[in-house]
Amino acid sequence: VIYDRMAVIGCGLIGSSVIRAARAAGAVGSVAVADANPAHRAEIEALGYADLVTADPAEAVRDADLVVFAVPVLAMGPAAAAATAALKPGATVTDVGSVKVSVGDALRAAVPAGVHLVPGHPIAGTEQSGPASGFAELFRGRWVILTPEPDGDAAYLEAVERLSGFWGALGAQVDAMDAAHHDLVLAVTSHLPHLIAYNIVGTAADMEEVTQAEVMKYSAGGFRDFTRIAASDPTMWRDIFLANKDAVLEILGRFTEDLQALSRAIRWGEGDKLFDLFSRTRDIRRGIIIAGQESAEPNFGRDRSPPAGGATP
Amino acid sequence: VIYDRMAVIGCGLIGSSVIRAARAAGAVGSVAVADANPAHRAEIEALGYADLVTADPAEAVRDADLVVFAVPVLAMGPAAAAATAALKPGATVTDVGSVKVSVGDALRAAVPAGVHLVPGHPIAGTEQSGPASGFAELFRGRWVILTPEPDGDAAYLEAVERLSGFWGALGAQVDAMDAAHHDLVLAVTSHLPHLIAYNIVGTAADMEEVTQAEVMKYSAGGFRDFTRIAASDPTMWRDIFLANKDAVLEILGRFTEDLQALSRAIRWGEGDKLFDLFSRTRDIRRGIIIAGQESAEPNFGRDRSPPAGGATP
Repeated sequence: VIYDRMAVIGCGLIGSSVIRAARAAGAVGSVAVADANPAHRAEIEALGYADLVTADPAEAVRDADLVVFAVPVLAMGPAAAAATAALKPGATVTDVGSVKVSVGDALRAAVPAGVHLVPGHPIAGTEQSGPASGFAELFRGRWVILTPEPDGDAAYLEAVERLSGFWGALGAQVDAMDAAHHDLVLAVTSHLPHLIAYNIVGTAADMEEVTQAEVMKYSAGGFRDFTRIAASDPTMWRDIFLANKDAVLEILGRFTEDLQALSRAIRWGEGDKLFDLFSRTRDIRRGIIIAGQESAEPNFGRDRSPPAGGATP
Repeated sequence: VIYDRMAVIGCGLIGSSVIRAARAAGAVGSVAVADANPAHRAEIEALGYADLVTADPAEAVRDADLVVFAVPVLAMGPAAAAATAALKPGATVTDVGSVKVSVGDALRAAVPAGVHLVPGHPIAGTEQSGPASGFAELFRGRWVILTPEPDGDAAYLEAVERLSGFWGALGAQVDAMDAAHHDLVLAVTSHLPHLIAYNIVGTAADMEEVTQAEVMKYSAGGFRDFTRIAASDPTMWRDIFLANKDAVLEILGRFTEDLQALSRAIRWGEGDKLFDLFSRTRDIRRGIIIAGQESAEPNFGRDRSPPAGGATP
């Protein structure tokens, strides 16, 4: 047991996966959950993996040695403010938000002296949402980025060490970096990909000359891949784009610039330019597979068996 | 047996999958293969699924009842021209190209009277290339679009019917449509997705502030999904963008327009606009899963077991 009592504030895909993984690893003694959504609370009660389920963050964090905020990023500040008075001295407060500068600021404003704030972000997830969608293996082999305070004392460094050990026990690998750098890296590896995916699915849905039925039937040509991340939780992603506006707009500007060059190469029939780019991009995927972050199987392995709903003539 | 002898011109992922699937289904008697690449020919000989392997399209198509051109789209015309004189009267000529107007024109110029030209396109594939990457199940549950000539006589219609039956025997579902409409539909469901994927991977690779190692390590946040289709064959995709230029540029224009609106909504903090789009896009994925074109499992099912190369601390 790494923490006698863990409180999770917000129990969707990530919050519930943290609980399942921590329980499976024997990393926590007892678990308290706070969730503002009555339907979520009922689901968590039914799933039976929490010792206490409440709507009130203050009630959940009482006596907790580790508090994990796992609400949408713009809800982090209010949730932490609601818990402030009940936080146990010496406890560690962390979060799982995909934006670290603004979330760190919001949590810092709510966490009193004597409580260790170590913002964090597990780079893991699926396109599903809600407490029932979580699973214990979600963090296995994935990276967790912590953005600890630069000026921490010995007790603080010990708290960071302990939190790293907690994520390690859940199967994750842990890195630490500056919050601003995290936000730029994630704008590239997560936020821009989601923005592009949402956008292309929206563009396809709005075409007049091509029906939605056609888009769906013929989606195996590549389009279907984008629909996965475009099925992610709308509230979570709205908050991320608003909370990491500057980094997202910067990366989006680069992307658009590159896309215009590509468009121009197509218009003028510059096949060499296309071929050069298309050849370079293969190496990146190879690197991701070698880094253990992706399946090496063709089509993500999903064609090993025909899809459940697959109609054959 | 639907065709006594099949010739496949160009034996990469798709060509070799057609052969394997046709053999598995007992849809062909014998198989001849022409491939311009000596390494491919050696691979095909070693795999042992062709009765004749040659560099010469004319030699391959001699006596064939079905000829399938499966070379990159800009190579279709030259390959067909090389085979013209040897085509058997009454034979059916088809192809698997992702562009149908220009490929249809190129094939039409090379196919003599008395041979039935029925252009086609199986909406199936993986990010891998070459004869060894093909597999018999590739077309199962997928759609094949045929773009037959509008003014065919009874013998022609019979040839179309027989080709539809052939694809059905390989597990595919068959649709027919106008070539120009095909090119617009595929620009949406396949060509734009590939262009966007290649572009975002290129943008990420060129960042100075974020290292390639960081992009790879933290790619599970969404980016890794895009690297799959950005690992597709560079020659094939160069040709597609050049051969379907007008439709691709039109759809790309729409995409860019929508992306600018999204960018503006982020800049001005218009959360409602973001939320609305992000909510709409979920339905499309649900439709694709219902249409049997996608796995319903989270993360494409790839996290059922940890990735092969996955390092755990």
